[in-house]
Amino acid sequence: MEGVAIIGAGQTRYGDFPNKGVKELFAEAYLEMLQSVDQSLDPQMIQAAYIGCLSAGSGFQLGQLAPLLMGHVGLPNVNAVRIENACASGGFALYNAACAVASGKFDLVVAAGVEKMRDVSSSKGRYWLGVSGDTEYERLAGSTFAGIYALMAARYMHEYGLKREHLSMVAVKNHKHAVANPKAQFRKEITIEQAMNGVPVAHPFNVWDCSPTTDGAAVVLLCNAKIARNFTSKPVYLKGFGAASDYLAIHDRNSITRLAATRKAAAEAYKQAGIGPGDVNFAEVHDCFTIAEILAYGDLGFCEEGRAHYLLEEGVTQLNGKLPVNSSGGLKAKGHPIGATGCGMACEIFKQLRDEAKEPSRQIKNARFALSHNVGGSGGTAAVFIYQRGDE
Amino acid sequence: MEGVAIIGAGQTRYGDFPNKGVKELFAEAYLEMLQSVDQSLDPQMIQAAYIGCLSAGSGFQLGQLAPLLMGHVGLPNVNAVRIENACASGGFALYNAACAVASGKFDLVVAAGVEKMRDVSSSKGRYWLGVSGDTEYERLAGSTFAGIYALMAARYMHEYGLKREHLSMVAVKNHKHAVANPKAQFRKEITIEQAMNGVPVAHPFNVWDCSPTTDGAAVVLLCNAKIARNFTSKPVYLKGFGAASDYLAIHDRNSITRLAATRKAAAEAYKQAGIGPGDVNFAEVHDCFTIAEILAYGDLGFCEEGRAHYLLEEGVTQLNGKLPVNSSGGLKAKGHPIGATGCGMACEIFKQLRDEAKEPSRQIKNARFALSHNVGGSGGTAAVFIYQRGDE
Repeated sequence: MEGVAIIGAGQTRYGDFPNKGVKELFAEAYLEMLQSVDQSLDPQMIQAAYIGCLSAGSGFQLGQLAPLLMGHVGLPNVNAVRIENACASGGFALYNAACAVASGKFDLVVAAGVEKMRDVSSSKGRYWLGVSGDTEYERLAGSTFAGIYALMAARYMHEYGLKREHLSMVAVKNHKHAVANPKAQFRKEITIEQAMNGVPVAHPFNVWDCSPTTDGAAVVLLCNAKIARNFTSKPVYLKGFGAASDYLAIHDRNSITRLAATRKAAAEAYKQAGIGPGDVNFAEVHDCFTIAEILAYGDLGFCEEGRAHYLLEEGVTQLNGKLPVNSSGGLKAKGHPIGATGCGMACEIFKQLRDEAKEPSRQIKNARFALSHNVGGSGGTAAVFIYQRGDE
Repeated sequence: MEGVAIIGAGQTRYGDFPNKGVKELFAEAYLEMLQSVDQSLDPQMIQAAYIGCLSAGSGFQLGQLAPLLMGHVGLPNVNAVRIENACASGGFALYNAACAVASGKFDLVVAAGVEKMRDVSSSKGRYWLGVSGDTEYERLAGSTFAGIYALMAARYMHEYGLKREHLSMVAVKNHKHAVANPKAQFRKEITIEQAMNGVPVAHPFNVWDCSPTTDGAAVVLLCNAKIARNFTSKPVYLKGFGAASDYLAIHDRNSITRLAATRKAAAEAYKQAGIGPGDVNFAEVHDCFTIAEILAYGDLGFCEEGRAHYLLEEGVTQLNGKLPVNSSGGLKAKGHPIGATGCGMACEIFKQLRDEAKEPSRQIKNARFALSHNVGGSGGTAAVFIYQRGDE
């Protein structure tokens, strides 16, 4: 298997952009990616593109979005394909781009994601996200996406003594991190009192437990590790990549206080990278709802199952803690442009591991290994990646 | 790069199945695939699944169709992902499944496709297929899918002297081939007079120039070539696989009497396999419209550009000809369940190269190499595969 490196990464600011379509968003992220490559790269050397998007069924472009976008940035003839696994579409795009490089088929491959959630917002947006669960057993029975995660939160509270304030601590932390991130949708701190008393959504969640509706795009450029230094003095190596699925409907699962897909994907990624959870210096995890970050701590091995809230109490996952989580602000505050989210995490880690986080207040120092974690729906799929800094 | 073999393949009959949903269709094809594996295979050994589908945005299951289907057949925890490139979704599923095996990540991977076109038929179906072109420049300008291919046919006629009867010869040939194929949607011969005088669709096309609206599913099982003989005495090797894109809107292309995506994909596949067009013994090509098969002859190197109709006149691509094309009946008569089509071609070739085509009248004899060719939309994407028989 060939080694895989990331040599460039770019993303739009995340937010609500009524005047930009998917082509504009994608091109903006793609051009920032090109500018991040240190040495001169001829874009015509790019051979393939894996692009994650969920909402491409909504009418703006149903079929073949990937070649449309690559044609728009001047690369009509690459091998371009759309990858879809709901909120993990970007993570699976990155995973399969990595497999393509690892196979030796290609040296230079784009992994990207784009979403225009504004165009599927309001009632249609809620309908859409609902169908990332099981349509027959969940959506048609009336459950919402927030409602399903709320069941997981309630069960975690019942089994492990998680309190309402622990959920809010995730929101407060991630909002705080987002303030210094110029790419984030919500760059404002919230207090624990605010986070505890938002408008109710689905018990025990209020609006501060939920990630927002977001437009955005993210693009990373993967390269065969052997030639990565031809293009940059600071490659970031993708040392491990894992992906897995689970039953979509949560009633089919053995437990709802863990995500089996995350655990299987993490085991694959850790094994390939040859490291364990204790080696990870910082992580971007999938906090579509506050409970999702708490589940991730256990599923990724950062703590034992049922002990995640103690990490929050001890400040371990704050930016200045021992294991910073979601330095970007996470889905909660950086935003959640569905198909782009998994690749956006890679952009954040690329910047951090190259000491290019810009705002000194948010630069994580002396990090060697990082992890990103992207979940589809309520855990129907998950992808996990291990990154290693390359300038050592 | 690891070698890739196909060790099992199964598909539903193609047709109009009002009482079967995507889960039933997929399970039917999956079970036939399992039954085709000679030696005992524990399905739990399957590690990943790449599933092509276009219409998964229509409501029956928007997000994460792939893990839903794999959960339905008892494999909820594999690495499952949906692949979408319109009518080439199945081909790109097969391509990326092959990359995953070639990378060494996996030994056993499902490549599949499924489509329930009945549920998006009538006006919605036409709308759907239209958006496989460029929404802004083609669909919103009023063009239909048939209309775009009709422009290509008219130009080919103008440049190369193709006659209306040459188009009909494709339809007559493929209908004749389908009669003996138990999986085909239309198992009836048509005369050249019928084919010349169908209900007009888009000049120069009549209804006999167009592939039908089809439900169906197809599943193939890929295996690392090193261990293929653990599971079967008759593996079929996937010696080459290529894929490429092009501008979606045909006005952006240099020529409309060739598909650049097919040519690039074919070059990649031939190079990897180490063979040329003259080595191919038979092929399944993408005849969504009759002109598409004619374009394919030139693009795949079976003849010089502009000479394709002479192959038809000489009967070269008939079942008993020197280079049989679409022994299955092709999209025209076997049917075209969009996301399944590319994998269905692999099923036909798997049967033929194992001498298991059943009906003696349709078994192609003494074949060593075969090719399949799957196109997205009007040539926005294409995937090409080279197969080699494995019992030599």
